[in-house]
Amino acid sequence: MEKIKKAVLAYSGGLDTSIMIAWLKENYGCEVVCVCADVGQGREIKGLKEKAIKSGASKIYIENLTKEFVTDFIFPTLKAGAVYEKKYLLGTSFARPVIAKRLVEIAQKEKADAIAHGATGKGNDQVRFELTVKALAPNIKIIAPWRDPLWTIKSREESIDYANARKIPLPVGKKNAYSMDRNIWHLSHEGMDLENTWNEPKDNMFLIIRPLSKTPNKPEYVEIGFEKGVPISVNSKKLAPVILLETLNYIGARHGIGLADLVENRLVGMKSRGVYENPAGSILYYAHNELEYLTLDRATFHYKEIVSLRYAELVYDGMWYSPLREALDAFVNETQKTVTGTVRLKLYKGNIYSAGTKSPFSLYSTNLATFGESVDYNQSDATGFINLFGLPLKVRASLKNKKK
Amino acid sequence: MEKIKKAVLAYSGGLDTSIMIAWLKENYGCEVVCVCADVGQGREIKGLKEKAIKSGASKIYIENLTKEFVTDFIFPTLKAGAVYEKKYLLGTSFARPVIAKRLVEIAQKEKADAIAHGATGKGNDQVRFELTVKALAPNIKIIAPWRDPLWTIKSREESIDYANARKIPLPVGKKNAYSMDRNIWHLSHEGMDLENTWNEPKDNMFLIIRPLSKTPNKPEYVEIGFEKGVPISVNSKKLAPVILLETLNYIGARHGIGLADLVENRLVGMKSRGVYENPAGSILYYAHNELEYLTLDRATFHYKEIVSLRYAELVYDGMWYSPLREALDAFVNETQKTVTGTVRLKLYKGNIYSAGTKSPFSLYSTNLATFGESVDYNQSDATGFINLFGLPLKVRASLKNKKK
Amino acid sequence: MEKIKKAVLAYSGGLDTSIMIAWLKENYGCEVVCVCADVGQGREIKGLKEKAIKSGASKIYIENLTKEFVTDFIFPTLKAGAVYEKKYLLGTSFARPVIAKRLVEIAQKEKADAIAHGATGKGNDQVRFELTVKALAPNIKIIAPWRDPLWTIKSREESIDYANARKIPLPVGKKNAYSMDRNIWHLSHEGMDLENTWNEPKDNMFLIIRPLSKTPNKPEYVEIGFEKGVPISVNSKKLAPVILLETLNYIGARHGIGLADLVENRLVGMKSRGVYENPAGSILYYAHNELEYLTLDRATFHYKEIVSLRYAELVYDGMWYSPLREALDAFVNETQKTVTGTVRLKLYKGNIYSAGTKSPFSLYSTNLATFGESVDYNQSDATGFINLFGLPLKVRASLKNKKK
Amino acid sequence: MEKIKKAVLAYSGGLDTSIMIAWLKENYGCEVVCVCADVGQGREIKGLKEKAIKSGASKIYIENLTKEFVTDFIFPTLKAGAVYEKKYLLGTSFARPVIAKRLVEIAQKEKADAIAHGATGKGNDQVRFELTVKALAPNIKIIAPWRDPLWTIKSREESIDYANARKIPLPVGKKNAYSMDRNIWHLSHEGMDLENTWNEPKDNMFLIIRPLSKTPNKPEYVEIGFEKGVPISVNSKKLAPVILLETLNYIGARHGIGLADLVENRLVGMKSRGVYENPAGSILYYAHNELEYLTLDRATFHYKEIVSLRYAELVYDGMWYSPLREALDAFVNETQKTVTGTVRLKLYKGNIYSAGTKSPFSLYSTNLATFGESVDYNQSDATGFINLFGLPLKVRASLKNKKK
Repeated sequence: MEKIKKAVLAYSGGLDTSIMIAWLKENYGCEVVCVCADVGQGREIKGLKEKAIKSGASKIYIENLTKEFVTDFIFPTLKAGAVYEKKYLLGTSFARPVIAKRLVEIAQKEKADAIAHGATGKGNDQVRFELTVKALAPNIKIIAPWRDPLWTIKSREESIDYANARKIPLPVGKKNAYSMDRNIWHLSHEGMDLENTWNEPKDNMFLIIRPLSKTPNKPEYVEIGFEKGVPISVNSKKLAPVILLETLNYIGARHGIGLADLVENRLVGMKSRGVYENPAGSILYYAHNELEYLTLDRATFHYKEIVSLRYAELVYDGMWYSPLREALDAFVNETQKTVTGTVRLKLYKGNIYSAGTKSPFSLYSTNLATFGESVDYNQSDATGFINLFGLPLKVRASLKNKKK
Repeated sequence: MEKIKKAVLAYSGGLDTSIMIAWLKENYGCEVVCVCADVGQGREIKGLKEKAIKSGASKIYIENLTKEFVTDFIFPTLKAGAVYEKKYLLGTSFARPVIAKRLVEIAQKEKADAIAHGATGKGNDQVRFELTVKALAPNIKIIAPWRDPLWTIKSREESIDYANARKIPLPVGKKNAYSMDRNIWHLSHEGMDLENTWNEPKDNMFLIIRPLSKTPNKPEYVEIGFEKGVPISVNSKKLAPVILLETLNYIGARHGIGLADLVENRLVGMKSRGVYENPAGSILYYAHNELEYLTLDRATFHYKEIVSLRYAELVYDGMWYSPLREALDAFVNETQKTVTGTVRLKLYKGNIYSAGTKSPFSLYSTNLATFGESVDYNQSDATGFINLFGLPLKVRASLKNKKK
Repeated sequence: MEKIKKAVLAYSGGLDTSIMIAWLKENYGCEVVCVCADVGQGREIKGLKEKAIKSGASKIYIENLTKEFVTDFIFPTLKAGAVYEKKYLLGTSFARPVIAKRLVEIAQKEKADAIAHGATGKGNDQVRFELTVKALAPNIKIIAPWRDPLWTIKSREESIDYANARKIPLPVGKKNAYSMDRNIWHLSHEGMDLENTWNEPKDNMFLIIRPLSKTPNKPEYVEIGFEKGVPISVNSKKLAPVILLETLNYIGARHGIGLADLVENRLVGMKSRGVYENPAGSILYYAHNELEYLTLDRATFHYKEIVSLRYAELVYDGMWYSPLREALDAFVNETQKTVTGTVRLKLYKGNIYSAGTKSPFSLYSTNLATFGESVDYNQSDATGFINLFGLPLKVRASLKNKKK
Repeated sequence: MEKIKKAVLAYSGGLDTSIMIAWLKENYGCEVVCVCADVGQGREIKGLKEKAIKSGASKIYIENLTKEFVTDFIFPTLKAGAVYEKKYLLGTSFARPVIAKRLVEIAQKEKADAIAHGATGKGNDQVRFELTVKALAPNIKIIAPWRDPLWTIKSREESIDYANARKIPLPVGKKNAYSMDRNIWHLSHEGMDLENTWNEPKDNMFLIIRPLSKTPNKPEYVEIGFEKGVPISVNSKKLAPVILLETLNYIGARHGIGLADLVENRLVGMKSRGVYENPAGSILYYAHNELEYLTLDRATFHYKEIVSLRYAELVYDGMWYSPLREALDAFVNETQKTVTGTVRLKLYKGNIYSAGTKSPFSLYSTNLATFGESVDYNQSDATGFINLFGLPLKVRASLKNKKK
């Protein structure tokens, strides 16, 4: 086994990453520096420092990455219109590279020779963490305790015993809860009764989105301003990226918006059920698309639909820091130059409805679209268009006739 | 001008196609045979025969194509998962080829030498009608009065005058109404205040879907059975295709389901606003996709997403009877061999929620998906997987390091 | 008919565009300014000015666009790897927008209100000319005499009569020759005996490429240097773009390289036979691809293959100045950042063979590729990789077994 | 370790698979049944039975799979037009599934509980073998000695010692030769001096293709007949699939045709240099494409180009027995219904030239393609076509003008 002197551990304060501090020290004989990344997951930060030190860490970095996460990961993906398998807005997927990037930066600063993470051996997150490390710091060793041959802990009970034996503070928490991942963009739920695809998600499972029975009985209108594909204002008020997301999360959640429930194909070969809460995300994807209806021409809109699919795959698969993702980004950014304008939405009982779109770059022309004659459109041109557009079909049909 | 002896006219009984009977006779000196195709548009059929004859037709065929429409056009497109520009379920698009196909058959039976239709020169429908005719009967002449140099009628008023002067019976109807197209799959609205993209659709515009304020305050569950991608039952009751659609239209409409509002790119070069009511369609697309989550593997699911986009383009563009549409259909049908099973949906206040999916061909494995160890999955395999999957990124990063 | 005061005509000095000067003046009563664009087609420029003035033009611009053509049109397309229908290197396609762009600039300078071109009504070039004009100067009127209702000339004989009657100088030229288009990138041949797809091109048809029987009996090696996807040197000598192409045309032609013969699908609906001579182009496409083998990773290489196809379509279809072409360009340019290095080719008897490639950004690692153990590759990783990569197939197979 | 009773080994008679017989018996205590698959690799079959038995096998199957290989693997891929990374005709890739399929069949017949193969841990073949086994017999255990923790042999010398110690007959063979794979479709070369990408392949490396200096000084014409995309005759003589390939290999090799040299991206993450000899393959791909020029319409031809890329990826990656490959096959077969006709090629000095194509389903129309007027083409239609096709560009340009 390679000798490790100092490891940087992605630390959440939960049971698993707490015992990993001790485990790393015992099994690798290394110093452990913890990094707790805040990507908008809520109030779990308090008391972390004490807990980490008590658990054996030599140091802890508590890093607020929320702004970088929104600006450099969420917004590019939003501009790309990337949705994984028709429903999943990639909330966990792009949170991993932003965290792993900071792990690398801290490892380099700390002259650590390893990075450790608590992702399990069956999920996508291990891939996303490790690909980011490989792409940014190919020489740093990666330790994934859950897959490590030295790791012998098999159950929650064994974890608790391991912690107690070492006086590691235990987090309070329900056992048998869903596996959840939360950040400013989303909250995901996996496991438990969801593992049977015939089960409907239970109403009390949702922690962000209001049940429809408790949403307002009146629609709410919201206007979102975009500049070059990036949302910049809500109801005519310019908002910084993080505030903008929080605002839309609040509004959307109140109307029960942003639920997604799918059986997705993990990169590591199996299908998995995920239920997601994504109020701001759902609103922003919807709004962004409305604006593209006005501002992208047909050829670009259609090709971008294809590109979106690959973009989503790359993000899902942890290939954020890959040349292809960067090249697709260049494509997307070029298309967004005119995606500027305002989208008005009606939010009501879980639904998002279009309620008006305008843009200084709108390619919609009332004059062209209207039923009567237009200055710029000569209806007789359609005859020529159809004749040439349909010529291949006619040639083929004539051939068939001849052959009869 | 070519001499025409007998023209077959796509006849709806409305003002436009009524005066076209007279106009064709006057301008082409030909006999006019009317064909009224019923594709599930509702009760407009009554009295049509009398009206057509009074308007000058020598004969009228009233053809119920609804079953063929559902089976041969709607279901293949549903299996393909084809949606045009993210929202439009192609309701008008695939109604045109089924009608034009029958026009061709009747023209051949009647030994007519021309087919005429009332589609305008700015829309997609002219293309769809004419491409179908070109593909099926390349030698039949096509007359599109609205684009005909001999056509001089410029306004609704002139149409009415033209009709009155020839004692053509006038249909009763509001003027200045939306331009609508209805069939068993959908109802579309265009024109009027919708031509301003900043306008929200008016509540009283919808003729099928209930406003949310009037939908039930309790969710309704519906179970849809599929066989090889085709819906065959509702709530465990086998239903013939037409009945099945009518049933889901009824249920969906009651819950306010199936609204789509978009600014779409017409084939003929301009953007156009369309608002669509599609209750059964929205439910079926949703359900079909749920079943594909279980039954398609990742590679197939992802590639089919790309194919869906091209399929939708072809249908929208009137290229139903084209070799590429047929080849994509072969692809789709191969993927549907295991898309058999039951989807349970919760319908509530305009929303469709997943409420359970099962299939004898489900590729979902609880054993694999669950967090603990699995018989078929060795977590240490993930190490090898990630190392090779991430190798290109690592090689590239090493190169960058070397070059520093 | 719209009133035209001044028209700018794309003028070649040939019979067709010569009589168009007179025809425009007679039929539109307008002044005619000629523009002759040199895109490297050879020595046809001499005496053009006199000829144009004698034919009735008020002025002639003789514009050397070769450098712009190579730099702004040929090289971007080369970087994209765009080939139309597997063989055609787009030689005529991208020459049209560079010419039309200059026509627009001159029209604007001259305050002309129309642009006229001599492309026929059955080809792609009319589309390419006119789309460029529409994209750059949407308000300038376009006159295409060959499609103009006022144009009555139907044959070469009538053209000559028309010219003689007006004392328009006649170009000397064989009649019944192939229709050809030449520029620095290629020479195309169409028509005559090529119109029968069962005919082989005649040996004496080729004007650039040597027949194999006369090519050297010894191979020649050539080294091409690239920087970010752009060729910059030949045999270690830096060359300006135009000189570089001329050099490779000379070398390639001597070895009989660069023939392409295909039946292509024109945009306007019919198939057409084209035979192309493309020595430098064939060499450069080959070399560029060799370098991409070394410098692009698998994901990028594979996706770029798809993008190339759409890029080629857009160029062929005259959509150079379109948002989608520009967005694809952004994608391509991002991929080319490391496409720097040297490619050595062996040219011999019409063939291009790889004879060595190197790049400071090469992702090829001998250590990884070699058969034995590598530092960076643990063969046992492959077990994990295969197990997860093949897991979906195994799950599906297990299901099938269970169902037996 | 799992207990194995009987293993079926893919056996070639070479050093590696010979010692694997003994190794399997010693390490797994199992009976070893050898399977030697003949896929047209030439005369290596003689004496194999004796050698296998002497080496410790209990039984050997010598299976001629050549016909199945050509019909069920090569021809479908040819119809798909699948080429990996622009040059590689997949010769090794699709030989693996046909062999692995037979291994599975024999394992089932023999009630063996394991399949073993001699592919190394760095290549693609291990993936192709094992994915096929997983897809066809998910419960059979796979043994890959090269990756097995029990395998300790590290060099050719150790292999020879191992063999000598067990009196295993040694094959005669040069050491330090290229790594080669041969079958009726191709011969591949890897390793040695090819591992430096700056090295040109040595002339004496090629075993099938004649050096150009020794090819005939006169071109040879060959006519290939196709039916639904499948080659069925050479020079008007119907030939069975295997004979047809052998004939074209003989003819092509004589003219020095079929060399491919590329640095390809292996599935397992690294780049690798391969040089291939593929005379019949190159001729057939060329000819098949010529016929598709005539018989596929533009939309189908262009979409098939995209599909070909994915098809090639799947074959290369060992995913022959996957639902996606089967679905793409359905697409391809639908397109091939009219790919019937005759292609005439001129073979000369390493080159393949088009020398005529004809088909009863040719969509090429001389009448349409010719320069003059056509019955089926009204040149004035082009005006309408261009106006509508270019409308989006014009709208966008007008917008830009307005905004200035």
